[in-house]
Amino acid sequence: MSQPAQIVMPSPGGAQPSRGPSIEPLRRLVAAEMDAVNREILRRMESDVQLIPQLARHLIASGGKRIRPLLTLGAAQLCGYGGDKQILLAACVEFIHTATLLHDDVVDESERRRGADTANVVWGNQASVLVGDFLFSRAFQLMVESGSLEVLRILAGASAVIAEGEVLQLMTANDMDSTEADYLKVIESKTAALFAAACRVGAVVADRPLAEAEALDAFGRDLGIAFQLIDDALDYGTDAATLGKNTGDDFREGKVTLPVLLAFKRGSEAERAFWRRVIEQPEQQTAEDFAEAVRLMRLHHTLTETLERAHNHGAAAKAALAGFKPGAMRDALLEAVDFAIDRAV
Amino acid sequence: MSQPAQIVMPSPGGAQPSRGPSIEPLRRLVAAEMDAVNREILRRMESDVQLIPQLARHLIASGGKRIRPLLTLGAAQLCGYGGDKQILLAACVEFIHTATLLHDDVVDESERRRGADTANVVWGNQASVLVGDFLFSRAFQLMVESGSLEVLRILAGASAVIAEGEVLQLMTANDMDSTEADYLKVIESKTAALFAAACRVGAVVADRPLAEAEALDAFGRDLGIAFQLIDDALDYGTDAATLGKNTGDDFREGKVTLPVLLAFKRGSEAERAFWRRVIEQPEQQTAEDFAEAVRLMRLHHTLTETLERAHNHGAAAKAALAGFKPGAMRDALLEAVDFAIDRAV
Repeated sequence: MSQPAQIVMPSPGGAQPSRGPSIEPLRRLVAAEMDAVNREILRRMESDVQLIPQLARHLIASGGKRIRPLLTLGAAQLCGYGGDKQILLAACVEFIHTATLLHDDVVDESERRRGADTANVVWGNQASVLVGDFLFSRAFQLMVESGSLEVLRILAGASAVIAEGEVLQLMTANDMDSTEADYLKVIESKTAALFAAACRVGAVVADRPLAEAEALDAFGRDLGIAFQLIDDALDYGTDAATLGKNTGDDFREGKVTLPVLLAFKRGSEAERAFWRRVIEQPEQQTAEDFAEAVRLMRLHHTLTETLERAHNHGAAAKAALAGFKPGAMRDALLEAVDFAIDRAV
Repeated sequence: MSQPAQIVMPSPGGAQPSRGPSIEPLRRLVAAEMDAVNREILRRMESDVQLIPQLARHLIASGGKRIRPLLTLGAAQLCGYGGDKQILLAACVEFIHTATLLHDDVVDESERRRGADTANVVWGNQASVLVGDFLFSRAFQLMVESGSLEVLRILAGASAVIAEGEVLQLMTANDMDSTEADYLKVIESKTAALFAAACRVGAVVADRPLAEAEALDAFGRDLGIAFQLIDDALDYGTDAATLGKNTGDDFREGKVTLPVLLAFKRGSEAERAFWRRVIEQPEQQTAEDFAEAVRLMRLHHTLTETLERAHNHGAAAKAALAGFKPGAMRDALLEAVDFAIDRAV
């Protein structure tokens, strides 16, 4: 990006401006509970069928950021919840996420995740599909233990929406005639729905009024959209330093993300022909195509615009927390939003 | 089979001895409710993402026997339930089953089911995995609507057990050192657990005492084991008429089922070498291997014994209904057991 500085958000209170916003304040505030969540996750992935914990551990213990369970714990604490059901629910949210990742990697034929071979590479697609099913079922068992039908309603609904989003993403991949509306529906479904649910259940478990549940839902949803917009921009690198590093996966799969859609819309006839060729027949991409894609995105400022939109959703997420009690947890959640966005600059 | 007559069960009252036992009496007793279940199924597979209903309809509308939802309806009626929640639960059970079939066909690389191309052949593995996830999530949404945490506990538990069974089956495939205990655990998990849950929820929705729920659970479980034993025998044909017709799928995939395990155990050194070769490296099977497998099974009466064991589980299933009110529904459920077993003779 030529002018990343223009979309950098100011660091909120609590973070050192020199190191940028961080998710550490949130992590510190729920540290003891997060340890309990990690123990619960390890305990609940056990099975007599040894391949299940083996494969699940590969992914779950591989150092994901655990951002969704962190949000559940943070939301519950923000709502003043004093019980321990948030532990179960946070584990449950991470299980749903992990099941989705296992199936995603099969569908996308991914080979690397979090710096390691994907489970489908190590154990095959078959095992990944079935262990994903197991983790998904186990997630519902955890929800049942929480004893709240409302929690079940929220998370079952989110799961259905995630699956719909994944199917829509599959249908729009390799299709340059798919629309920005399709793209927004995909990211709202496959990413934002679980962020929203992860936050919302924090209010539900604390038995707070509907308005608080809806505010946390909105917070999670906008944060999730911002998070995914950033991810989709990062796939094309956002400055010279990150370019070429862990980038290009979406491009090689022919995924139609916002930076692509905007470049296509703003491109010349020749550029549109380029996009059709590389996205609709990604298997025929040449070694130079990715650099050309990034060049066109910069030319038309589509990465900048994607980040700006992420910024706007981040602002909306922060606004949703306005009604909650000021304090360390609210600050930590606000900073988590900045952290999610500043990954890109 | 040389002497199928010895394991034919007498037809129970209500069925014409000339045509053998039938599932029709059960189907007639719940006909109106089953229509409602079918409407519910069609309504709940809808989605704005068109591929979802398209793919789901292919499988759901393709004329499966709907035996699991029939059992839920029958169990609820046997328990004297007068409400309408059994409709939701029966639809839910069929959704779980359908999701499992979609993922099964991906895992087994199956190409034909119920006389048609499988969904994975028509729409690809990716769509089958994701639409399976959608149906599974939708099943949980239906459960939540039933409003019973106990129903959710039962069906979430069954779903986890099914996934465990599928993983165990994957691990034991192509492995002649897997045991009869492994095999029994596979079929109890992947098949009998859902039969048991489908029946049990009928008692739970009717708010009947635990003893009745457990009796219906036992009925479903033994029926499910019998059903799967018969399926596994049928895969090798059970008499000259059926031999070669829809047979050999398990053999070609190298699945270690009971007829194989018994033939291996009772075989000579040379026969055991044959089994190792065809099961552990099924891709190298020759055109004559299947006929040789059937010959060895007949020689060692392993199909007969598999059917006898199915018969025993059928008898146990029937015994589990002893405490329920005699009448048309109990008779119909007893006859359904005979129907499940007599498919093979």
